[in-house]
Amino acid sequence: MEKLSFADYYQKKKAYFESHLAASFPRVPNPVAILEESMRYSLLAGGKRLRPLLLLTTIECTGKNADFAMPLACAIEYIHTYSLIHDDLPCMDDDELRRGQPTNHIKFGEDIALLAGDALLTHCFALMSTTALLEHTSAGNILKAIHILAESAGVFGMVSGQVADIQRQYVQQSSEEALSFIHAHKTGALITAAVQIGSLLAEVTERDFSELSGFGAEIGKCFQIQDDILDVTGVKERLGKSPGTDQKNETLTYPLVFGLEKSKQLASQCYENALRHLDNTGINTIRLQELANFVLKRDH
Amino acid sequence: MEKLSFADYYQKKKAYFESHLAASFPRVPNPVAILEESMRYSLLAGGKRLRPLLLLTTIECTGKNADFAMPLACAIEYIHTYSLIHDDLPCMDDDELRRGQPTNHIKFGEDIALLAGDALLTHCFALMSTTALLEHTSAGNILKAIHILAESAGVFGMVSGQVADIQRQYVQQSSEEALSFIHAHKTGALITAAVQIGSLLAEVTERDFSELSGFGAEIGKCFQIQDDILDVTGVKERLGKSPGTDQKNETLTYPLVFGLEKSKQLASQCYENALRHLDNTGINTIRLQELANFVLKRDH
Repeated sequence: MEKLSFADYYQKKKAYFESHLAASFPRVPNPVAILEESMRYSLLAGGKRLRPLLLLTTIECTGKNADFAMPLACAIEYIHTYSLIHDDLPCMDDDELRRGQPTNHIKFGEDIALLAGDALLTHCFALMSTTALLEHTSAGNILKAIHILAESAGVFGMVSGQVADIQRQYVQQSSEEALSFIHAHKTGALITAAVQIGSLLAEVTERDFSELSGFGAEIGKCFQIQDDILDVTGVKERLGKSPGTDQKNETLTYPLVFGLEKSKQLASQCYENALRHLDNTGINTIRLQELANFVLKRDH
Repeated sequence: MEKLSFADYYQKKKAYFESHLAASFPRVPNPVAILEESMRYSLLAGGKRLRPLLLLTTIECTGKNADFAMPLACAIEYIHTYSLIHDDLPCMDDDELRRGQPTNHIKFGEDIALLAGDALLTHCFALMSTTALLEHTSAGNILKAIHILAESAGVFGMVSGQVADIQRQYVQQSSEEALSFIHAHKTGALITAAVQIGSLLAEVTERDFSELSGFGAEIGKCFQIQDDILDVTGVKERLGKSPGTDQKNETLTYPLVFGLEKSKQLASQCYENALRHLDNTGINTIRLQELANFVLKRDH
């Protein structure tokens, strides 16, 4: 069988994942149909699905079928989606457009958007603790996955990154230190967690787990630098949102601190570091290499 | 040894739990000290600690030492606290006073309050998946506890109750149906979950689990009816918040639908039903009976 091009592989996997994501959805009680509508609106609005695809691809690189891990792949996308809804709220970034559509609170109101985010975050852990997973991995493994996700999404990861971003003017730190902290926590932690959870479920060796974690951290950083660059150079129609919002919001970004050219070099450097980590593993990581390349080269 | 009076028992257990709660707290990275401060502010602001005490007392009723379950008792209080912070936000109930103190967003701003709530909710699941628990119960049992909590706090419980409360004017339902749905989901689900998680960890029989779940549901309802009554008859100094807010917010309450006298009768009826469930178990439930009585008789 001829090997699929990465573009075809990615589209196929993304569509397959999205069919599971739609089906993963909890049927909420009738009086609160609006909650389901609001959750679905953001969850099924498209996106790159980078985190779940990283999780699933990591498992497949070890030669295993990754279908059993779908509840966990969905769970991490629930977390990512909740964070977007809350980030867009008026008391946060106050954004009105996301993926080319009105943001959740513009469409459903602030109260429902807040609660849809809360519900997505909470239901993530209901998905992760479904008994169906026990047919394929141990309860101990699932507990570890839950722990990794809760830490990387919470006070030791994403939420701390967001707080640091908001609070940076009150903290004595150089711009470079602050930038490094914010990006590692706000974006890097959850992307790293996706690779770690995949590694855990695939039961890779301790050494491979460590190398794959390193890979996750580097592409997390690469992803965020590229995100900052696209906010300067990107085109609204491709981005699905207006570029220039970082400048408008006075966000601390790589281009602001390092300039555009140096930022591009730093992104490439992260990509190279990521590949080096993959080379050190004992598994066939070609699809992860391609995913890393996609993160570096993306225009949206 | 003479049996402690319930008042002494309750104060002792509450203080013991609160010392664990304070120690359970994650040390967050330095640049986001404000996040820790904001989480601590609400988490350690007092309160009845009903949910964790129900969880711990359920275990003790079976003759077991409940200390090992402290991470889970703390976890459920994290969830309860997050829900209060988000409920108080301007886009929700817009409350400025909670337990006699300024609400979280008045003290720290809306953005930090939102994120402190998110962090408490997320960290709850980090606490529940700590490996220390595995010395005392199986990973499978902990997974079940996580599943119960995620479902009862999310789309099948608390969040749905909150949405139903907000949306009730758009839904074709009688006042009694709406009230029953809102209260069972918004308050009842998490209180029931506390008893169920305690029962699970104590490894009670299937029949006792079912009776204790019934007990949880009845005292959850009793608690909420009493809450509605206190909003009419309560005294600000005891409540720690201004009474009359339900009327101000046009909240659907038991006194509004049934009148004050009938509401008191309904609360007593729930209490009686709760005791009947306890009578049907094979364990010594005296402290749970006393907790139920406390729920019925409380003045704050």
